[in-house]
Amino acid sequence: MFEYKVLASQGRARAGVFLTSHGDIETPVFAPVGTQATVKTLTPAQLDELGATLLLSNTYHLHLRPGDGLVRELGGLHEFMQWHHPMLTDSGGYQVFSLAQTRKIDDDGVTFKSHIDGSTHRFTPEKSIQIQENLGADIIMAFDECSDPTDHAYSKIAMERTHRWAERCLTAKTRPDQALFGIIQGGVNLDLRTVSAQFIASLPFPGIAIGGLSVGETKDEMHATLDLVLQSIPELKPRYLMGVGTPEDLIDGIARGVDIFDCVLPTRLARHNAVFSPKGRLNLMNALFARDPRPIDETCECYTCQTFTRAYLRHLIVAKELLAGTLLSIHNLHALIQLVKNVRISILDGTFESKVPAWLAQWEGNAERDLSNMDTSVNKDLS
Amino acid sequence: MFEYKVLASQGRARAGVFLTSHGDIETPVFAPVGTQATVKTLTPAQLDELGATLLLSNTYHLHLRPGDGLVRELGGLHEFMQWHHPMLTDSGGYQVFSLAQTRKIDDDGVTFKSHIDGSTHRFTPEKSIQIQENLGADIIMAFDECSDPTDHAYSKIAMERTHRWAERCLTAKTRPDQALFGIIQGGVNLDLRTVSAQFIASLPFPGIAIGGLSVGETKDEMHATLDLVLQSIPELKPRYLMGVGTPEDLIDGIARGVDIFDCVLPTRLARHNAVFSPKGRLNLMNALFARDPRPIDETCECYTCQTFTRAYLRHLIVAKELLAGTLLSIHNLHALIQLVKNVRISILDGTFESKVPAWLAQWEGNAERDLSNMDTSVNKDLS
Repeated sequence: MFEYKVLASQGRARAGVFLTSHGDIETPVFAPVGTQATVKTLTPAQLDELGATLLLSNTYHLHLRPGDGLVRELGGLHEFMQWHHPMLTDSGGYQVFSLAQTRKIDDDGVTFKSHIDGSTHRFTPEKSIQIQENLGADIIMAFDECSDPTDHAYSKIAMERTHRWAERCLTAKTRPDQALFGIIQGGVNLDLRTVSAQFIASLPFPGIAIGGLSVGETKDEMHATLDLVLQSIPELKPRYLMGVGTPEDLIDGIARGVDIFDCVLPTRLARHNAVFSPKGRLNLMNALFARDPRPIDETCECYTCQTFTRAYLRHLIVAKELLAGTLLSIHNLHALIQLVKNVRISILDGTFESKVPAWLAQWEGNAERDLSNMDTSVNKDLS
Repeated sequence: MFEYKVLASQGRARAGVFLTSHGDIETPVFAPVGTQATVKTLTPAQLDELGATLLLSNTYHLHLRPGDGLVRELGGLHEFMQWHHPMLTDSGGYQVFSLAQTRKIDDDGVTFKSHIDGSTHRFTPEKSIQIQENLGADIIMAFDECSDPTDHAYSKIAMERTHRWAERCLTAKTRPDQALFGIIQGGVNLDLRTVSAQFIASLPFPGIAIGGLSVGETKDEMHATLDLVLQSIPELKPRYLMGVGTPEDLIDGIARGVDIFDCVLPTRLARHNAVFSPKGRLNLMNALFARDPRPIDETCECYTCQTFTRAYLRHLIVAKELLAGTLLSIHNLHALIQLVKNVRISILDGTFESKVPAWLAQWEGNAERDLSNMDTSVNKDLS
């Protein structure tokens, strides 16, 4: 259990397989995010059709609602949401720092108020593990503190706390069927990242995550951090780059040796009417698409592209029909899942490095992590 | 084309088949409603899985948005929404009278303002047929006026106008691949209904609809009207009871000789967290279901009941996850589609009349056409 095998590599990129209680995860892999025990607007049957294997769900959200005790009582997260492939839960740390209304951190843990109803809660490393054991995902994460990446002094404090918490998580863990991953922090401070990578690598985690990236730093900072961190950790553990990312980020990350990615981007973009395409990101609300008989992407094999025109999808968006969110989510998730699957094949057959420039060129117009590049001026056209 | 064959009957109930350009419709049949060229929250693939054959879409809505010209340009409604089984469009009359902001009716037609943007439009019988020919459904409807059913004087005026408009629709129709159905009006006034049934039956329509029911009259009034009307029209034409209904309405209607039904109830209830069940209608928001490991209906074979617990469905509702609408719509549509399919089988094998009492008993708690019977006191429990 939790063995990671590298099947092939090209440069620093690797194709491997990670064995879990709910089946093997072929890496590299992109994990769709099911924050509240559902990948928004999609049934498990649709996710299966998309070729999803690993799904991520959020400890913070599920603890608050419906409660991890209830999920456990109903057979655990796989049974609750009826996803019978591997799952991963985060530690709740990131959401406590980004979503909770107020929070007070001390060396033992964090006290915070729920963003839902203002009720007071407390997470400690032990509590995070207990919740994640109730949820029962195959991969669980150490409780960490994600700091402002450019604040060196505070990043050092947060990193040291993250290290102490990592040891406490290892001690607290009781279930043998869950793989606990440690998290490297340190912001974009290379000295701290070196210390953190070495420390986390020294602990008996079956997998290692890089946290605190894709939180506002530049691409160059992210790449420099990744380059440094990944050379400091063992080859034979899977590496998980948390919360990343765009098609370009995935290719860049895999080229540097990352194995696992997750990101809300595909489903979040879908809810903003935006889709990935080889011609760059498109906002289907745009009146340009009103009579467009083409699919989103003529080369795409997803259900949405094999079935519907841009004109129909735009009609659903303009008419505020919820089916739009479903169909656009299918396309965006398919794009990233298939991109990573194709990259994996190219690593196995030794063509990865020769294909990278074409992939990067193909996807460059989809690179932004936020929604700010979308032309919203046309959104006024609701007719 | 448009031949209707009665394969078996029991009492006044019939099992038959109606031949259309996009395949045969086995009757009795329940048609889900796809108002804006989509059955809300469901893909055509999911509708296919549910065993849906005939779908209804709305002329008024599609004319306003995206425009019937655009739908025609993109290959017609089947191609636009990718439903390759039979479709039916209504005439737009009912929506003009129920949705449009202002309307002025004269003997030639109706001028009204769009509920979307206040723009002025005019429907005449010829215009309704032209729009429906652009949309291209297999069954199209004559333009009619639906009046307050209890106002005898005005119902007579509206009925006479409906009759003149029926003749104009027959004259205006040009496409040989669409079956134009006439509509009987007259409110709950039996003298008017007799006149209207005889008049519409005298015209060369390949099918006949009963309009102006399920608009606020009592069950007894509806049944008396149906009994009267259905004995006045030819056996060898399909009979369509518009906008009906509940499980009980379907059984009552089939027992009286109705072949085709449509209703928004299953999807509308789903959006209000309510589901059909043999124990009566349930509102899954109710805190009673928070830890309930059972499916909605243990005897139901739909994807939702075969896969998810009430506890999970309630979690999706409380967490405001859109997947709830999809999963509840699947269950509610499956319930009505399968009920009608089972009724059809019982007519074919001669057991219908013996099964009616049990079916009525089983479904009696689901009879209400509105949402007023739902216990909303528990809806405050959002935790």
